[in-house]
Amino acid sequence: MNIENPHAPITDDEVFREHEGGKLSVESTRPLNSQRDLSIAYTPGVAKVSRAIADDPGLHSSHTWADRLVVVLSDGSAVLGLGDIGPAASLPVMEGKSVLFREFGGLNSIPLVINTRDIDEIVETMVRLRPSFGAVNLEDVGAPRCFELEAKLKEALDCPVMHDDQHGTAVVVLAALINAARLTGRELAGLRVVIAGAGAAGIAVTEILEQSGVSDIVITDSKGVIHTGREDLTGVKAEVAPRTNPRGVTGGIEDALEGADVFVGVSSSKVPEEAISRMAENAIIFALSNPDPEVMPDVAGRHAAVVATGRSDFPNQINNVLAFPGIFRGALDAGAREITAQMKVAAAEAIAEVVGTAAEADYIVPSALDPRVAEAVADAVRRTAQEQEV
Amino acid sequence: MNIENPHAPITDDEVFREHEGGKLSVESTRPLNSQRDLSIAYTPGVAKVSRAIADDPGLHSSHTWADRLVVVLSDGSAVLGLGDIGPAASLPVMEGKSVLFREFGGLNSIPLVINTRDIDEIVETMVRLRPSFGAVNLEDVGAPRCFELEAKLKEALDCPVMHDDQHGTAVVVLAALINAARLTGRELAGLRVVIAGAGAAGIAVTEILEQSGVSDIVITDSKGVIHTGREDLTGVKAEVAPRTNPRGVTGGIEDALEGADVFVGVSSSKVPEEAISRMAENAIIFALSNPDPEVMPDVAGRHAAVVATGRSDFPNQINNVLAFPGIFRGALDAGAREITAQMKVAAAEAIAEVVGTAAEADYIVPSALDPRVAEAVADAVRRTAQEQEV
Repeated sequence: MNIENPHAPITDDEVFREHEGGKLSVESTRPLNSQRDLSIAYTPGVAKVSRAIADDPGLHSSHTWADRLVVVLSDGSAVLGLGDIGPAASLPVMEGKSVLFREFGGLNSIPLVINTRDIDEIVETMVRLRPSFGAVNLEDVGAPRCFELEAKLKEALDCPVMHDDQHGTAVVVLAALINAARLTGRELAGLRVVIAGAGAAGIAVTEILEQSGVSDIVITDSKGVIHTGREDLTGVKAEVAPRTNPRGVTGGIEDALEGADVFVGVSSSKVPEEAISRMAENAIIFALSNPDPEVMPDVAGRHAAVVATGRSDFPNQINNVLAFPGIFRGALDAGAREITAQMKVAAAEAIAEVVGTAAEADYIVPSALDPRVAEAVADAVRRTAQEQEV
Repeated sequence: MNIENPHAPITDDEVFREHEGGKLSVESTRPLNSQRDLSIAYTPGVAKVSRAIADDPGLHSSHTWADRLVVVLSDGSAVLGLGDIGPAASLPVMEGKSVLFREFGGLNSIPLVINTRDIDEIVETMVRLRPSFGAVNLEDVGAPRCFELEAKLKEALDCPVMHDDQHGTAVVVLAALINAARLTGRELAGLRVVIAGAGAAGIAVTEILEQSGVSDIVITDSKGVIHTGREDLTGVKAEVAPRTNPRGVTGGIEDALEGADVFVGVSSSKVPEEAISRMAENAIIFALSNPDPEVMPDVAGRHAAVVATGRSDFPNQINNVLAFPGIFRGALDAGAREITAQMKVAAAEAIAEVVGTAAEADYIVPSALDPRVAEAVADAVRRTAQEQEV
């Protein structure tokens, strides 16, 4: 870290130096200074604990670390904006994720990167290792494989499983939208929303908005608006087509944005200012592609009342770190066996509520470093899980 | 820990309390206090490191934690003296092992317990996860499956793999024997050695003694002396029969011990005093079964010049913790892709040398807590690996 000036640009040298040897360390939670300590932590003491778990399997959750251990799992097939760089090269990202679980969620977490693209083999691997962990944060798996992989993992494992690129993003988008709608005097249910991108994030944002009562959602992909008249749609795109686009819009992004209240960009493509200019008065624009937003904030600001991006150097950063540490913490605190749609909505509402009445156009989501967030999210998720008895 | 009296008996309450929530914690190696820290450890900074590894796979070893991460792997099929209690119940032991890797070897380590008994499935699982770790400490897998599993893992993985119940024990036995032989004025090559037990430890002790020039080794199992005339031998027992027992001894343990210089018990069975009394003058007795030695030290002492056990409450504790942390540390420091027989012998010599000229009948191996040991072992193993260029 540059101590002289924390605002100095981050150099490559600094980044590489800070990653040397990796970013994680496994430590003992108890001192090991004497023969007595050794006899308790290892033989002969540990035999009593193992014997007790063999007799009463419930003690596995109270007397090992597994029940509260989050595996950050990736096959490296869609890493950040880098694409398919493989499991080995994805590991620094997964280590970083484990760091965030520790720092924001107070949770133990280990990265496991897996050298297969076969969905059933990935599921099988995690089933075999099931006694070793308590939750799975799936990460950086490309669409559409991520949908099937997440569904099969959830089916096969009786513990919380969440693909963060889908649901972490969706939760923070909903949080931001709750405050942006409030600021611009709108109700969620009445919003006309355009989502550019039908990948992992786009589909999950669609689902959480549907869950929250938004009924007019138009999704676009690289070929334009998704509607039931298109014959090239397969998989999740074919599934969402009949559920979305109630006004039967066709054409391109500029047609979709005609009169829209909200634009959510998760597409890595550019949107011209002319298209943005067609949106409704006091529009809401979330241009989330990183590092290059679909439309830059200064341009978006000419046509919108509220603008957010995925970048830390602009206001209103939509950052998954606001969601996943608290979501997993709350799910594990509740002893939940899954992460439900209701738990995700509760997480979004909790994030929005941290901002609360302090909301303004440049402050619709808390800072990624705000220590209140993970705690509020964990509380809300835990309560919802307990109410649902999952 | 009982602060008032460190010698007070360890109670069950204390043991269970010290295992609550498990014994490991995953921490960040760098502070995460500012947006700047976040931008370095996670996005956008981490993308540069991942991109660099994708371009130059060699950076995976310098810029992730994987290359120096030891997986402690078990299927829970032969846990301590408890037997086949399964993977979930074995986890406290594996966590304890990871604690010892941290405390004595200065290494990161994670326990993975696996819910299959199929050797090829275990190997396949580790092959899939290969980019996640740098070494495998196989633990508490029953014989004879452990021999095939270790061999197949070594074949499939280009990194250090060692089954500690075999080789950790063997290394410390050799270390103790080096000093015991010196004290009683013997050469290793001339020793007549009896090994009671042809399981994981017995076979590995046989191999390391052969490696060190011992040529007169007689092994016994539950049916008596192993010799080429026995028709019930399969697997490793059939393999060692023609290599050992050069004088063609037959019968039981009492026949084997007639005139023997050394007894190594790794059998969990009792040996009567009458049998022990047949050994040579100034005999050496290592009665290593835990918690009940094959012969108690006070009885053994009536017939032997040097006595060792596996217990911490008698002198001369033969404890694997003297070996495995330094062995893995040295192998990883050297960037070795395997742990060779020579590296294990070097480890044994290094442990013996820590005692050196201070050796006496009640001090043939260092204390498990002696901080000099792991460092000496790591140095010797690293040098040997570098000489062998493995």
